[in-house]
Amino acid sequence: MALDEMGDWRKTHFTKDITLALKGKEVILGGWVQNWRDLGGMKFIILQDKYGERQLTMKKGEVSDDAFDLKVGYHWNVMVKGTVKEFKKAPGGVEIIPSEIKILNKTPDKLPIDMTGETVSELDIRLDNRVLDLRSKKSQAIFRIRSEVLNSIREFLLKNNFTEITTPKIIGSATEGGTELFPIIYFEDEAFLTQSAQLYKEQLSSVFENVFEISPCFRAEKSRTKRHLCEIFTLDIEMAFANMHDVLKVLEGTIHHVITNIREKNMDDLKHLGMEDNTTVPELPFPRYSYKEILDRISNELGIEIEFGEDIPTEAYRKMESILPGYYYILDWPNKIKPFYIMPYIDNPELTESFDLQKGWLELVSGGTRVHDKELLTKRLELKGLNPKSFESHLRMFDFGMPPHAGAGLGIARLVAVLCGLDDIREAVMYPRTPDRLTP
Amino acid sequence: MALDEMGDWRKTHFTKDITLALKGKEVILGGWVQNWRDLGGMKFIILQDKYGERQLTMKKGEVSDDAFDLKVGYHWNVMVKGTVKEFKKAPGGVEIIPSEIKILNKTPDKLPIDMTGETVSELDIRLDNRVLDLRSKKSQAIFRIRSEVLNSIREFLLKNNFTEITTPKIIGSATEGGTELFPIIYFEDEAFLTQSAQLYKEQLSSVFENVFEISPCFRAEKSRTKRHLCEIFTLDIEMAFANMHDVLKVLEGTIHHVITNIREKNMDDLKHLGMEDNTTVPELPFPRYSYKEILDRISNELGIEIEFGEDIPTEAYRKMESILPGYYYILDWPNKIKPFYIMPYIDNPELTESFDLQKGWLELVSGGTRVHDKELLTKRLELKGLNPKSFESHLRMFDFGMPPHAGAGLGIARLVAVLCGLDDIREAVMYPRTPDRLTP
Repeated sequence: MALDEMGDWRKTHFTKDITLALKGKEVILGGWVQNWRDLGGMKFIILQDKYGERQLTMKKGEVSDDAFDLKVGYHWNVMVKGTVKEFKKAPGGVEIIPSEIKILNKTPDKLPIDMTGETVSELDIRLDNRVLDLRSKKSQAIFRIRSEVLNSIREFLLKNNFTEITTPKIIGSATEGGTELFPIIYFEDEAFLTQSAQLYKEQLSSVFENVFEISPCFRAEKSRTKRHLCEIFTLDIEMAFANMHDVLKVLEGTIHHVITNIREKNMDDLKHLGMEDNTTVPELPFPRYSYKEILDRISNELGIEIEFGEDIPTEAYRKMESILPGYYYILDWPNKIKPFYIMPYIDNPELTESFDLQKGWLELVSGGTRVHDKELLTKRLELKGLNPKSFESHLRMFDFGMPPHAGAGLGIARLVAVLCGLDDIREAVMYPRTPDRLTP
Repeated sequence: MALDEMGDWRKTHFTKDITLALKGKEVILGGWVQNWRDLGGMKFIILQDKYGERQLTMKKGEVSDDAFDLKVGYHWNVMVKGTVKEFKKAPGGVEIIPSEIKILNKTPDKLPIDMTGETVSELDIRLDNRVLDLRSKKSQAIFRIRSEVLNSIREFLLKNNFTEITTPKIIGSATEGGTELFPIIYFEDEAFLTQSAQLYKEQLSSVFENVFEISPCFRAEKSRTKRHLCEIFTLDIEMAFANMHDVLKVLEGTIHHVITNIREKNMDDLKHLGMEDNTTVPELPFPRYSYKEILDRISNELGIEIEFGEDIPTEAYRKMESILPGYYYILDWPNKIKPFYIMPYIDNPELTESFDLQKGWLELVSGGTRVHDKELLTKRLELKGLNPKSFESHLRMFDFGMPPHAGAGLGIARLVAVLCGLDDIREAVMYPRTPDRLTP
């Protein structure tokens, strides 16, 4: 069977638009065959598109023989011209009586993943066949939520006098140490993929003051956990005339706004993911604990001893989740484990004006007050064993009236995973990149 | 002189918010010293922030001696606490009488670029000192317009049922030929930076139907023109159940919406750039010419002969600009110079359903109807001398009910350059990347 041509047919509506208000009207829909049934004298096709599904009903004698005799398969791509009729039991309370159906593309008899939702295929097989997998109800819910996350973040920040910036992804020198950078062959030179917008967003805060960027960055980490990727989509924010505490307020405000919007616009998706009672609007302000307090609680309440100055291992965070399940900040991290651009406390330089935002066991955000004085920044580079010479073009920007500033970086996939209750962040990324996965 | 601490001072307003409505009120502003004058008994500082400027007025005896005696320099970073007073001749019709000024950061006596606007520094020097340069009135106007371009594009597409997608920037194989790809060392493997979202946006149109992405892509082209960069910020759109003509409508609608918004929100910026009479809302629909017609006009009206099947050289476009100065489409390009994924006309496979959008001499957009049938796509890969095996993971997605689809890619910097009347697109990019420039 040859494919039909779309010709001059165009969708008049999406499935979501087909309601009783259109009773008796002729419409054209397009989408994929989610399912079909043949009851002898009656046939049904459930057609899905990007917004949902509607039922096509073919009764022998009532529709053309061509439409009635048509064979279809799972996820065949079709367009249908038909009339809207009331039918309470069907999706949206309506059915479409087709006058003509076009088959625009077909699928093999056996699909590589189960699309009925009865069995869940292994994630790697789902990713190998990502297009098909993304049409599942679960993926559709996840990515509708992700889309709203991006919109809501931009909406909140633009309203709060943030300017969208675009920083370069190809950088000339292995600035932040270099162990986690992917090298690029840049004509005759060596260059690297940026591991964060850090230095550039700091620079731009001295022009546009409050700035943000949502963009890819790259980490050559060979970790095979369920929360690390080699290509990360990150929200970076930076604020001028501000310190860490100002950033904390903007961040918790952003997350509050995102969840409020999602509960308003994506409740069906939350329900489908079983998250309607989990992804609730958090109270503001988020609790703030110092690094020292958290260490003490981990020691007292879990009996795990972490030496002051060391990072908190995931294992300890996982155990803390029963005690601190929500969003909370951990402030004032030791200088030893924080990068050169983080501001030490003047009266106690072993500690820094830095923070993490946790949701339960998962770190969502890292940030802090930055050093804005060129002399101190140069000293801190040396202290961290880095060569100020390789930061020359960055340091130069501190000659031009750099304001006090502070900022943070948030992993979009981690936030989406939290909101959608996903165990593996690869589910929250359209095409995840890991040490073992470069395709599709 | 040591720097002041910001302490608990926070900006209460931006300069734009300081109007007569605040007369008599105490405010805190922060920003950079754009200029200052010393008239003996009176001193003035023009303070600029991200939105504009306001005047600080210090009269001997009226302000504290500390405030009066303060020395400042160009682009020193300051915060000021003061009272708003009416003064018709000053920016915004007000002046601020400072009670206290804090110097948060300073600059060298001689700045590397002239910030008074009297002389224009060479672009490379401006880029070397980008932070300072971006604070110039010209750059501020350009990037305010750019910000509105991004917002308006997203606003228009989201309203028109487009879904925002994120495609990977690291790809596993040198798909589209490979000559313009930057190789990456990806752990033990070779990988590449994506040169466009093409294949992935096509795939995702078979899930989310109308999709868009605004994201970086990378071209290893050693061209040193004023319109090419190695890192490009691109709007990619793709539409399912659509052909080229549907894309033409969405694109011209997008540009119409962008310019309408810019004229409404950025008229001061357009005026500063001298573009208020040039960047006008274009009439819809944009004129549509075939490739053949354009070749004929170039021959008849300019006397330049281009062989059918060849690309149109920039020189010919530049000469055509006096005849076709506005936005126009060139349709139906020869198959010979179009990539494998572009749909040939069934009845005339030497021509393809493809288009460029021109603004005068500059190509802004390239797009077309895509091949959605796997068999034809495989044949076209072979025809173009590419190996279908290296497209395996892409071709697999065509098994799953790929709809007819069409799309386009628009260079954001080129559009901004056109709207702002810039000769060199590097001016429209915060940190341009060229074969010779990897810093800052």
